[in-house]
Amino acid sequence: MKALRFTKSGLNLAVVQMPRSESESLVRVVKSGICNTDLEIVSGYAGFHGTIGHEFVGMVEKSADKPGLIGKRVVGEINVGCGVCGLCLMGDSRHCAARTVLGINGRDGCHAEFLMLPSKNLLEVPENVSDEQAVFVEPLAAAHGITEQVEITPEMRVAVIGDGKLGILCAMSLGLKSNNVSLIGKHKSKLAIAERRNIKGILIGDSAGLGCTFDVVVEASGSESGFAAALDLVKPRGKIVLKSTFHGTPTWNATRIVVDEITIVGSRCGRFEPALGLLANRRICVDDLVSEEFDLDDGVKAFERAAQKGMMKVLLKMAN
Amino acid sequence: MKALRFTKSGLNLAVVQMPRSESESLVRVVKSGICNTDLEIVSGYAGFHGTIGHEFVGMVEKSADKPGLIGKRVVGEINVGCGVCGLCLMGDSRHCAARTVLGINGRDGCHAEFLMLPSKNLLEVPENVSDEQAVFVEPLAAAHGITEQVEITPEMRVAVIGDGKLGILCAMSLGLKSNNVSLIGKHKSKLAIAERRNIKGILIGDSAGLGCTFDVVVEASGSESGFAAALDLVKPRGKIVLKSTFHGTPTWNATRIVVDEITIVGSRCGRFEPALGLLANRRICVDDLVSEEFDLDDGVKAFERAAQKGMMKVLLKMAN
Repeated sequence: MKALRFTKSGLNLAVVQMPRSESESLVRVVKSGICNTDLEIVSGYAGFHGTIGHEFVGMVEKSADKPGLIGKRVVGEINVGCGVCGLCLMGDSRHCAARTVLGINGRDGCHAEFLMLPSKNLLEVPENVSDEQAVFVEPLAAAHGITEQVEITPEMRVAVIGDGKLGILCAMSLGLKSNNVSLIGKHKSKLAIAERRNIKGILIGDSAGLGCTFDVVVEASGSESGFAAALDLVKPRGKIVLKSTFHGTPTWNATRIVVDEITIVGSRCGRFEPALGLLANRRICVDDLVSEEFDLDDGVKAFERAAQKGMMKVLLKMAN
Repeated sequence: MKALRFTKSGLNLAVVQMPRSESESLVRVVKSGICNTDLEIVSGYAGFHGTIGHEFVGMVEKSADKPGLIGKRVVGEINVGCGVCGLCLMGDSRHCAARTVLGINGRDGCHAEFLMLPSKNLLEVPENVSDEQAVFVEPLAAAHGITEQVEITPEMRVAVIGDGKLGILCAMSLGLKSNNVSLIGKHKSKLAIAERRNIKGILIGDSAGLGCTFDVVVEASGSESGFAAALDLVKPRGKIVLKSTFHGTPTWNATRIVVDEITIVGSRCGRFEPALGLLANRRICVDDLVSEEFDLDDGVKAFERAAQKGMMKVLLKMAN
């Protein structure tokens, strides 16, 4: 089968063996989405080598342990735990120390014609959710996971820093809980996407005068300056949610965090089921977040496009 | 009256005017305690000039607004809000942006014969709490405040980094909630104080092999290496409580915080009433935490002693 692989020689379309497993399900990928994490892997972040990609929708072709899934259209939770450690036994494989992660860590990913995942990771997609929408379940679950970690009430002032795909999804999800969400970013065109959802768009240069007035600030820009801006915006006793990984080791004003008793919440992933529900119930609309779609054969070109400024989601379409 | 004042020319005993106020209570200080924050102020931290000190017990001599307090032995909450902002109206003057803080920010402190505080900041001390014990109400409130911010259950593994006075008080307070508290520090003699309370003492050099196994880690050393150690010890989805301010701007591994969804909780102060209750009910014993006592006249010498390695609490006794 064809697969987009990142190796020592870079990103290339390769022809590889079909994946095989006695205990997992075989999924024929229909569409996949390019995430910023993919772009970082291609830049050498995380040291992953193999087939990349972790946002997908596909059809189950084989299933050793759950034959009822065969022929179903599915999305898939990307963390696969060892199954025997304390965390896995408590049902939280997302933090299993020995976990593999689809297309990110120790497991071939979804920018390919086929992939394998345990059946319990797969979730059937309702008919009224399109393939394009279903590809957003993974990033929307990550964005919506914030609301599982931090209580958001209607009157709370919430800011999201970073107007990329993740930042916009976070602002949309938080906008379901709070009537006062601002998206702070650098791109007028991206802020406009949020403004169509009743979210206030603020250019980062205009945010300095806002003061320490936000109950919750989500850092989704992944930049050191974004974290500094979050510290400037959050109220005493407020919360900063770190949604993006950072390159290197940023410096921080730890004294403000202690004196003003600020809480910082690291946030990586969320549950798929509520995210799929938000798409099925039309509470979250992702249709204008897709910039372009490429055939898997043009995957390298798709990655180049996805890395360009101002791009939103780039999708890959499998030919099979 | 006599007061220990920090000015541009350093720390000196001075004779100053008695404090006056139409709206606050006048307290004759009986004993006061030297805190690490005092030592940092004397080193130029926080830019405070004036009479320092914020841990005290004293007798109310005058009270414009609450004459019933006159003659009572009291301790006092050190934050004084503006009284009219949203935070003050909600009862949380501890975070009022215009607050003054006894001996720390905009308000003369307690290493003096007399001080002023609003009557509502004063709390009567039960007879069975000695003067020496009462001086610990402020730091014990700060330590015990952790349990108001973070839920601690009996089976949780808790570590406190830093075996100074604050670290030991934190470990003692947390030991009331968890059966599994470790104090990690550099001084065998200080770890021994904790071990007398059924708290495990661990030398910092021996902590490297413990792995990411703690549900909650309290950073009470105020050092960058202490924060790095906390990150090495906390479990995925665990919590780090920052209890000490830091000098400068430390660097941090933000990626671990995001990927392992760790929460960092800034923690400064706590409520006086529960702390006083813990001393009155003998649930917390502070008697072996006092190293030495000096007359106020020897205050400068007392500060020199307090700054020496291995010292625990140094008290000042007023002659009046």
